[in-house]
Amino acid sequence: MRTRKTSGARRGGVTRRRLLTSTLGAAAVTLRGGAASGQERPDSASRPGRPPNELGARAPAEQLKRTPIPTSSRTPLQDLHGTMTPSDLHFERHHSGLAVVDPVGYRLTVHGMVDRPTTFTLDDLKRFPSVSRICFVECSGNFVRTNGEKTTPQELCGLTSQSEWTGVRLATLFDEVGVRPQATWFLAEGQDAALMTRSVPIKDVIDEAMIAYAQNGEAIRPEQGYPARLLLPGFEGNSNVKWLRRLELADGPFMTREETSTYTDPLADGTARQFSFVIDARSIITSPSYPKTVQPGWLEIRGLAWSGRGRIERVEVSTDGGRTWSRAQLQAPVLPKAHTRFRLLWNWDGRPAEILSRAVDETGYVQPEWPALVAARGRRTRYHLNPVTGWRLGADGRVLFGIERVSA
Amino acid sequence: MRTRKTSGARRGGVTRRRLLTSTLGAAAVTLRGGAASGQERPDSASRPGRPPNELGARAPAEQLKRTPIPTSSRTPLQDLHGTMTPSDLHFERHHSGLAVVDPVGYRLTVHGMVDRPTTFTLDDLKRFPSVSRICFVECSGNFVRTNGEKTTPQELCGLTSQSEWTGVRLATLFDEVGVRPQATWFLAEGQDAALMTRSVPIKDVIDEAMIAYAQNGEAIRPEQGYPARLLLPGFEGNSNVKWLRRLELADGPFMTREETSTYTDPLADGTARQFSFVIDARSIITSPSYPKTVQPGWLEIRGLAWSGRGRIERVEVSTDGGRTWSRAQLQAPVLPKAHTRFRLLWNWDGRPAEILSRAVDETGYVQPEWPALVAARGRRTRYHLNPVTGWRLGADGRVLFGIERVSA
Repeated sequence: MRTRKTSGARRGGVTRRRLLTSTLGAAAVTLRGGAASGQERPDSASRPGRPPNELGARAPAEQLKRTPIPTSSRTPLQDLHGTMTPSDLHFERHHSGLAVVDPVGYRLTVHGMVDRPTTFTLDDLKRFPSVSRICFVECSGNFVRTNGEKTTPQELCGLTSQSEWTGVRLATLFDEVGVRPQATWFLAEGQDAALMTRSVPIKDVIDEAMIAYAQNGEAIRPEQGYPARLLLPGFEGNSNVKWLRRLELADGPFMTREETSTYTDPLADGTARQFSFVIDARSIITSPSYPKTVQPGWLEIRGLAWSGRGRIERVEVSTDGGRTWSRAQLQAPVLPKAHTRFRLLWNWDGRPAEILSRAVDETGYVQPEWPALVAARGRRTRYHLNPVTGWRLGADGRVLFGIERVSA
Repeated sequence: MRTRKTSGARRGGVTRRRLLTSTLGAAAVTLRGGAASGQERPDSASRPGRPPNELGARAPAEQLKRTPIPTSSRTPLQDLHGTMTPSDLHFERHHSGLAVVDPVGYRLTVHGMVDRPTTFTLDDLKRFPSVSRICFVECSGNFVRTNGEKTTPQELCGLTSQSEWTGVRLATLFDEVGVRPQATWFLAEGQDAALMTRSVPIKDVIDEAMIAYAQNGEAIRPEQGYPARLLLPGFEGNSNVKWLRRLELADGPFMTREETSTYTDPLADGTARQFSFVIDARSIITSPSYPKTVQPGWLEIRGLAWSGRGRIERVEVSTDGGRTWSRAQLQAPVLPKAHTRFRLLWNWDGRPAEILSRAVDETGYVQPEWPALVAARGRRTRYHLNPVTGWRLGADGRVLFGIERVSA
């Protein structure tokens, strides 16, 4: 049998098949003994294993974790495949810690400019016609560079996660209570200790918003707002109010503390924009990324792209610091307002390189570079920062965060 | 504020909104005290909660489990929403218990009718171009009625689960090793103590098959074949060999013990069909179902449908024991070879009723009733049993398995 080597990596004019051969960097294996397979019988095949049990668990070598700080914990994007986030790794961002809510005592009140103010139990919500959808939820503050060139994808932008959510459409509840014509906004209030509140414009969310009580098949996790949260696909995370207890209909925004003190974006001209709800298109290369090391030869550049405005139209990847761009493959189906996996096969010649990704959504919006973002928003804005970022590959194979792309 | 009652449930000529009102069966709530909301401040809002942590967990009231027997454990379909199965609730079915495989020592050998017999490490597999897809895996023996009318969806057909799988295409590996033109089948061998083996026809799987190493974003769970399994979308579960260690290319099937002694289907005429790989279209109403009870009025009939042949085209639901059928709504996107959530709003008048579901896939295949199945296959077949089944609703609100539909 053949032993494989990486030495073929830099040959020119080879077929795709041979190129793929060269992607295999691990040590070559010589088969020994055995009958039909030419393999030894492994330990796992020498005696029966444990029988099935009540609940599966991760393999010991595959333990994953979020990285908690006092106000948030982040999804380990660099360790994940595909597009779905395991529920126990969905990011957390709380304003006053985790609210523990008794599902039996849970109540959601809808009132204000409605004909029939009504309070619903959790069973009430579950009995209504239901809908499911796959989408991301992202915190608008999902841009951190605390560790300079040693920043991981998890640290940089781990405040985005994707789930299949199930619940009752907000439109169904609004029909139920008889929302009056003059109502154009509603207040959503959570029952955490912050009584987290946001104002939401009805017309922008009514087609897709739901009160979600399930996530990835099961009940929403406490960290995501158990037993029920507001889900506004494409809107910044904080407006997807968790532990939802109240919706109040009105004819304008409520100007709550959170949205006047925090969720406004200072602009370059000294004014501020308010109600910047929608998540702009963004992308991140998750592999290769810090702290991994790579070897010369063929490798697949992998990442995630998403937009609060709809589907990702394309993702472009540069391997030369932004001079030229190639179109990455998008994993189908490309769903609206959803994490979209992109991939590009690349033959790294072993010389220092800078790899970047740039997302374009179906509205034509192009993920900006840092200078354009600063020109538009000034330097004091803390939210909705979505610049093109990337990674520097050194001749030693180390991968570091391409911080110079965002601090210019 | 309004208190709600269920008394409106049986009125005729009401609007949809009013009908929805009547779906709410829980006790009416009277609001008390409070300022802006008219609500009391709940305990969760009286003090800050715990800060974010490394790993989320289910709410205490929402613990779920599979039901293990010595050879399998089943997904609690009646407790799940949407289409995705949490990884720790994915069904298990082992032939010799759970194989524990060291990922560092893991090897996959591809040999037989190939130009370059090759052994791959796990890192090798992960470095190849990758693909992701959402699909179900179902055991071909997924039809059990051990508890008669007290059978739950989990017991009846909990040997089907859905995940987003990521891995390397089998076609990529086959290009790599140079599969010879005369090779038409391959053997897949696992490294459990059963050395589970199945023969697979290349042309039927090569477009979609993958060696999967990730599931729902993270590494495959040990129960699903960690660190790598064969994934054959639409093919019966046992052919999706777990803990995969060997693929041998040949010009015909291998007639292994499992596929000659077990996975053949005795027919009515005394012959047997072999290589009944593809999962036929099927559906199951998951709510209402045993052991739940229901109240008269509007309720949403919910269930899952799937087919190994492609997309679900439609699901029909009968509420009168099969005399008349209504088309259920399908949750979009409807993916090929994937669990598809269906829903139908129904106003139950409180009289005994029998509710059934019937799936039709994109090939036009119609899920059969039991008599047709018996006529085609005889009574000795144990696999690929997918009859129309349902639930009987009693005047007392109890829901029981409609076993008469399948024992005729």
